[in-house]
Amino acid sequence: MDQIPGPAVPSARAVLRPIGLRDARVTGGPLARWQRVNRETSIPLGLERMERSGALPNLRRAAGERDGQFQGYRFQDSDLYKQLEAVAWEHARAPDPRYTAFIERAAAVLAAAQRPDGYLNSHYQVVKPEKIYAELEYSHEMYCAGHLLQAAVAASRAGAGDTLLPVARRLADHLVQVFLTGGNDGIDGHAEVETALVELHRLTGDPAYLDLAAKLVDNRGKGLIRDSGMGPLYAQDHLPVREADTPVGHAVRQLYLEAGVVDLYLETGDESLLECSVRRWEDMVATKTYVTGGNGSRHDGEAFGERYELPPDRAYSESCAAVASIHWNWRLLLATGHGRYADLLERVLFNAFAASTSADGRRFCYVNPLQRRNDLVEDAYLGRRREWFACACCPPNIMRLVASLGGYLATRSEAGLQLHQYAEGVVSGGGGRVRVDTDYPWDGLVRVTVEEAPAGEWELALRIPSWSETTYVDNHLAQPDEDGYFRIRRSGWRAGDTVELNLDLTPRLLRPHHRVDAVRGSAALQRGPLVYCFEQADQSGRVEVDDLAIARDAVPRPVPRDDLPGVGRTVLLDVDAVVVHEPRDGLPYTSKPLATSTRVTATAVPYFQWDNRDGGAMRVWIPLA
Amino acid sequence: MDQIPGPAVPSARAVLRPIGLRDARVTGGPLARWQRVNRETSIPLGLERMERSGALPNLRRAAGERDGQFQGYRFQDSDLYKQLEAVAWEHARAPDPRYTAFIERAAAVLAAAQRPDGYLNSHYQVVKPEKIYAELEYSHEMYCAGHLLQAAVAASRAGAGDTLLPVARRLADHLVQVFLTGGNDGIDGHAEVETALVELHRLTGDPAYLDLAAKLVDNRGKGLIRDSGMGPLYAQDHLPVREADTPVGHAVRQLYLEAGVVDLYLETGDESLLECSVRRWEDMVATKTYVTGGNGSRHDGEAFGERYELPPDRAYSESCAAVASIHWNWRLLLATGHGRYADLLERVLFNAFAASTSADGRRFCYVNPLQRRNDLVEDAYLGRRREWFACACCPPNIMRLVASLGGYLATRSEAGLQLHQYAEGVVSGGGGRVRVDTDYPWDGLVRVTVEEAPAGEWELALRIPSWSETTYVDNHLAQPDEDGYFRIRRSGWRAGDTVELNLDLTPRLLRPHHRVDAVRGSAALQRGPLVYCFEQADQSGRVEVDDLAIARDAVPRPVPRDDLPGVGRTVLLDVDAVVVHEPRDGLPYTSKPLATSTRVTATAVPYFQWDNRDGGAMRVWIPLA
Repeated sequence: MDQIPGPAVPSARAVLRPIGLRDARVTGGPLARWQRVNRETSIPLGLERMERSGALPNLRRAAGERDGQFQGYRFQDSDLYKQLEAVAWEHARAPDPRYTAFIERAAAVLAAAQRPDGYLNSHYQVVKPEKIYAELEYSHEMYCAGHLLQAAVAASRAGAGDTLLPVARRLADHLVQVFLTGGNDGIDGHAEVETALVELHRLTGDPAYLDLAAKLVDNRGKGLIRDSGMGPLYAQDHLPVREADTPVGHAVRQLYLEAGVVDLYLETGDESLLECSVRRWEDMVATKTYVTGGNGSRHDGEAFGERYELPPDRAYSESCAAVASIHWNWRLLLATGHGRYADLLERVLFNAFAASTSADGRRFCYVNPLQRRNDLVEDAYLGRRREWFACACCPPNIMRLVASLGGYLATRSEAGLQLHQYAEGVVSGGGGRVRVDTDYPWDGLVRVTVEEAPAGEWELALRIPSWSETTYVDNHLAQPDEDGYFRIRRSGWRAGDTVELNLDLTPRLLRPHHRVDAVRGSAALQRGPLVYCFEQADQSGRVEVDDLAIARDAVPRPVPRDDLPGVGRTVLLDVDAVVVHEPRDGLPYTSKPLATSTRVTATAVPYFQWDNRDGGAMRVWIPLA
Repeated sequence: MDQIPGPAVPSARAVLRPIGLRDARVTGGPLARWQRVNRETSIPLGLERMERSGALPNLRRAAGERDGQFQGYRFQDSDLYKQLEAVAWEHARAPDPRYTAFIERAAAVLAAAQRPDGYLNSHYQVVKPEKIYAELEYSHEMYCAGHLLQAAVAASRAGAGDTLLPVARRLADHLVQVFLTGGNDGIDGHAEVETALVELHRLTGDPAYLDLAAKLVDNRGKGLIRDSGMGPLYAQDHLPVREADTPVGHAVRQLYLEAGVVDLYLETGDESLLECSVRRWEDMVATKTYVTGGNGSRHDGEAFGERYELPPDRAYSESCAAVASIHWNWRLLLATGHGRYADLLERVLFNAFAASTSADGRRFCYVNPLQRRNDLVEDAYLGRRREWFACACCPPNIMRLVASLGGYLATRSEAGLQLHQYAEGVVSGGGGRVRVDTDYPWDGLVRVTVEEAPAGEWELALRIPSWSETTYVDNHLAQPDEDGYFRIRRSGWRAGDTVELNLDLTPRLLRPHHRVDAVRGSAALQRGPLVYCFEQADQSGRVEVDDLAIARDAVPRPVPRDDLPGVGRTVLLDVDAVVVHEPRDGLPYTSKPLATSTRVTATAVPYFQWDNRDGGAMRVWIPLA
């Protein structure tokens, strides 16, 4: 085992192996900006919230160090754990004594709060100790535990101190005693601990953690916990994991569960786990994924919804689901080496995930709709980012992902180095080191300069995204192999050797499949990995976004902007469009439409950059005239 | 006041006046069928449920006559009250000693349960007497009371005994003491009592009931009750009634409130009430009404949703909302004489409302979606009717509406008789009596034969539905007047005089307004008042409804069927269509669609007749090829 700092470090079956966070330094482009804002703005705000939100005070109450009512939700502890994980990854990127100090302080509170038997959950210790492990269907006790385990793994891998690890191990050992060897066959209504247990196993080598993860996965779908009132699909407890064909219910739960399922495969080699997870991935991609890569079509139940039920206005597309999808795709990429998982990871990263945070890092989306109408009444705040939430699962989740972003850029193998995501920076792995110069995703040129390579045969693999229709490598037309990569394998690499990848950023109009009812007759604009949206702030005069339509053969024109106020660096897309004028008289259904239209130029902005200005109308899918 | 049996009998400002249930005998067509099935099947099942569901047992518990736990929801009493109202109207149609016996038995239980001070609500008396009127935001106490008042009014008007009336009056007097003269400025989170108080005022002449109704309407929107946790819009408590521009929140609450608002106008002449209600009606029709006439676009919050948010698959369109919409439209029709309200009433009646009940009267929909996909996982029961519900607000509501249907067919005025809805039968009013012979809505010919008319000038007014593009009266092209009617005013009517109205039943393809995003690029089929749907059961071979598309200029061909198995009498529509074959490979968005298609004939069935067969796919909106 090589405990490099970074997300999900598999020990056994991985086709590809991760590089450490310190092996991927991002120096430019949106990813670097997100990481800078995360460190300078979001994380400090998050740390402050750990007191105000009650997360730390609750644990002090559990430790008997503080009076007062428990604050917030029963899963309030998990906010702190994700915040700790964010700080740990940040420390790996650039050590800071304030981070280690925070981790130590929190670890001391946790150690004081933890019961002698290892149990730790401030809500149940403070509010209802008589119900410990008695209401697993909604208690979130193992869910919270999982986030602590992951935080402790991160802190250890990141070299941010080992103070969290003993607390996490005692809690994990307690879970083992109760749920593995103690005869309790329960599972947590909210999956998450499974992947964390596997990670803790990777770090510690303790087989009991892996065995418990396996038992929890095996026990799901057998009705071993009560229905929380939301139905068994909500918690993926309707069918055994190996039998379920499609992701269902609460999207974040399903997606965390999948990360755990693939993690288990990676360590145990149980092919049935990989097989069922891939089957659900394929179904999810084909029928339950937004063009932004987001998942979750329903506000009620925060649920996936039915196949092809993908409303843009009522999209839930929770930020946490985007994080969990990245976790799952990452593990599938490591397990299979197939670029389709890196493709989806990129789509999620640059769209559904990136849209969750404002340009200044101060506000966050919980829900990420693909449409906001211009005169909201029921949900005036739909799609507006907020500083924090009563249920604050998303902001610290976003922060831990951004802090660990570098780990997702590349992998290594015996053959060499694989670049999956493109950003300006320096990447080491597989015995080599390369510098990446690019203005991606604003520009499609990616120049890779070898700084170091082994003496013998060495392979540099470059992912060719599926959206790049015509790709060149060193000015030659380049076809991806069946895994989606262009591989340059040769001996005698020398420092200074360059490879120029030229990705096709021609803007495209995407059309929905016939069965995607909610956006029929519309198109979405995509340029490279970026999905665009029409936001009211960019339109001229009296052009109302809700009345726009574009021609079927419209050719979007890129308009680079160095520093669009509120937004920053971007490339807008101008497109010939019409404003539709249709009378509003009685029912909005007629056998004799009387619409007229006026020609205008409409302007689209990358979806991830929306809601940095006025809060007006926005739509990803634009009607075709 | 003339207390004829029938819904909403205004005393003052009505432009049109109702006729009694005994003055409108429906003998043929769907309405007669619904009434027969309601009497023979649904109502007996409903009466049986009054014991099993706990409605009557709960009241016996409140009376101290029975032990055991309270059963069901806090508004369980209201199921009984609506059931009593249904029985009362049925008694008006055709007296039956079993009905009067049931009403007497129930009245005895209610009288025994009622506290000496007049308070009556089995939930609060049995479960939490200390919370009486202390949690109005969700207690439903006045909501339940309102339904009792309406049942008592119905029983009195119907000649079904006056045993309910003293109980209702004592309860109403208690409400007056607490909320009108007692200084309590609260309102009920669920509007309904307002219209009922006005009705009780009409019956009794007691001005306090009207004053209380006025106070409750005036007090809404002022934050006088706490937020139930669903936000103030849920209970229409966000804005004063006269200021709100659009229906919001829980659809049934808004619609019952509107009935009360118009009722108040009808009795007080306060124009500001009519004005604000009409304003909301116009906004609702233009932006928040399904082509079926249904309302409520969201499962979460059972809410209206935003303007133009009208998803067919996730339509809520609660059966109770259809009932409440009919109540509101009826009152607006009486208040204004404008046929647009009768138009919408007809649309709701023949589509959103009629779809709520199976052909055999044994099963009911709570939610009435406009689309059901073919492979549901999250909600396998979506759109399937059920025998009963834990929250059983809908079935007895449907029954009371069907029992009182005759009252909605016609009105009277000093000028004569107005026919608003067409069905085979005999209608009296305004000094005359006519026989209507028609096979409506299967056929557009309506022959009205005068059986009795006053000696002097007399007017027969026939509504010309807005969907009838080319209408003939006695073979002459007939234009509706500005109110939507064709009026035949003359002296010397003689028994045997006939008027032949020929409505245009040409099937139409309806297209949605540009802003109705969810059904863009699709059409709905309508023939006369009937909206159609494509149900899997009617398609041949391997034609999957989810893959169908029809041509923009398709011409639907009516196919009369005498007795379609499971459905009964109907007229199907055949239409040239294609089956779209589109590969399912990765994300369902592409810049290069590869769809092919095969020509087929698709068959549509009236929406109200769906789900009487196999439970497969269904869609009202069909994509245009």
